[in-house]
Amino acid sequence: MFDLKLYLNDKRRMIDAALGRILAIAPHSRIVDAMRYSLMSGGKRLRPVLCLAACEAVGSEADQALPVAGALEMIHTYSLIHDDLPAMDDDCLRRGRPTCHIAFDEATAVLAGDALLTLAFETLSCRSMRHNVPAELWLDIIAVISTAAGYKGMVEGQMRDMLAEQQSEGLPLADLQALHLLKTGALIEASVCSGAMMGQGSLDQITSLKVYAKNIGLAFQVADDILNVEGDPVIMGKEIGTDRNRCKMTYPALLGIDQSKAVASRLVSEAVASLALFDHRAEPLRAIAEYVIRRNR
Amino acid sequence: MFDLKLYLNDKRRMIDAALGRILAIAPHSRIVDAMRYSLMSGGKRLRPVLCLAACEAVGSEADQALPVAGALEMIHTYSLIHDDLPAMDDDCLRRGRPTCHIAFDEATAVLAGDALLTLAFETLSCRSMRHNVPAELWLDIIAVISTAAGYKGMVEGQMRDMLAEQQSEGLPLADLQALHLLKTGALIEASVCSGAMMGQGSLDQITSLKVYAKNIGLAFQVADDILNVEGDPVIMGKEIGTDRNRCKMTYPALLGIDQSKAVASRLVSEAVASLALFDHRAEPLRAIAEYVIRRNR
Repeated sequence: MFDLKLYLNDKRRMIDAALGRILAIAPHSRIVDAMRYSLMSGGKRLRPVLCLAACEAVGSEADQALPVAGALEMIHTYSLIHDDLPAMDDDCLRRGRPTCHIAFDEATAVLAGDALLTLAFETLSCRSMRHNVPAELWLDIIAVISTAAGYKGMVEGQMRDMLAEQQSEGLPLADLQALHLLKTGALIEASVCSGAMMGQGSLDQITSLKVYAKNIGLAFQVADDILNVEGDPVIMGKEIGTDRNRCKMTYPALLGIDQSKAVASRLVSEAVASLALFDHRAEPLRAIAEYVIRRNR
Repeated sequence: MFDLKLYLNDKRRMIDAALGRILAIAPHSRIVDAMRYSLMSGGKRLRPVLCLAACEAVGSEADQALPVAGALEMIHTYSLIHDDLPAMDDDCLRRGRPTCHIAFDEATAVLAGDALLTLAFETLSCRSMRHNVPAELWLDIIAVISTAAGYKGMVEGQMRDMLAEQQSEGLPLADLQALHLLKTGALIEASVCSGAMMGQGSLDQITSLKVYAKNIGLAFQVADDILNVEGDPVIMGKEIGTDRNRCKMTYPALLGIDQSKAVASRLVSEAVASLALFDHRAEPLRAIAEYVIRRNR
């Protein structure tokens, strides 16, 4: 019987240790304090865990993908810091703590985000991380991650999210879905892909994993929207009801809670189905898919 | 007789064309509009020109380093967009036009900066740019540039600049110099280094070029401070006197105008002296060093 909780704890420990090691060599400074504050604040580590799990699913050791997993979490954290800024979502609470611009200040938060994004690429390219991975593969991974994080992916998703909030008439479901595929889906897909690439997965495996990632990425967003309506703010570490208060377009707002839950379940089933060609080593990925809609924070 | 003006025009045309090609494949969207607005606004292109000139100085064709030059200009432009934000320097005018957050809005400016930084690394890693350069070399270049741009370089410099502005007592000269070596010097050094690396320069050549870059980076900053006092706002495309108005620590404020000019001249002489082992192919770098303190914008 596969124990997901044990697996997640184990992988999160690996990831936190790797991130800690990378920051440990940094000199003491305000910018590094702010980077550390946001990076080491006990997030779910979903993207790096997916990266490691995908590496294992194709038959390699998770360690192999650890620097990539760390870089992905840096990029995710930078995006949260910038999304929380007053000019963006203007959030004061994140992972149960004041957001970076509240704990430090706005200028420091902008710069800490910039520095984390840059450090991700330093981590993916510096000689000490390269060991026995071919340079071509590193470059392919940098290309996959940068493409997913930039104007073709995550940044475009956040831009559309900002624009959608300004529209009074709301977004059709297809547009909302396209937005999430960019805003959260692209980096989740890159996480799974880059993990499989580090594990020397085949093209067939990577194609299946992309389908998996698209589905759990969307499921994750639907679940997030549901939690914003009916979640426990103490467990979630952030306020609830904020989406409705700022008239944010969400699945519950468009479909109602019950249909939103049905959509999330269907997405998870499709994610699991896409892993048919994988053996027991994809068990963590299957369990994570189920977990995405059952988590409470 | 070497004609710097012709050389700069020629290289800027190459760089603008390369940047234009990279953006031409981007879909039409608000974020890409904002990226293009800031990137294609007729900057001096100092960093990419230095990159190409360093590539030529070590005996290779400038074309070789063109993608790297483009990536450097993207990183420089992202840093300007973020530095201009209300929470940072709060500047309304840049290169003679409204800054990105004025022409668009603050959220778009944050995201356009993020997207340009990310696109730089996509450009340095995507398969279409790699052609006949060894993957190991690309990775080394990504490492050099990301290290210079992040918390060990440019971002730390901007952080110190923000902190210095909050201090009433001002900064000693040594700290001001350290700040500039980080804020502008690091990326200028990375520009020259990465150009020489793309041109397969020797370690000796790269070591000399680093000395060159450190000196012109500082000279550039001293000259910039002087221009902020006595420059022509029409030619410069931005307001003058802004440093004094916001009590910014500058060389003229610390040393006076005359001694600042003497410092700039000495730095340029040292930059030129560091190129002693190079032949006529380093003529552009020598001329650029002189130009740095003679430019009027």
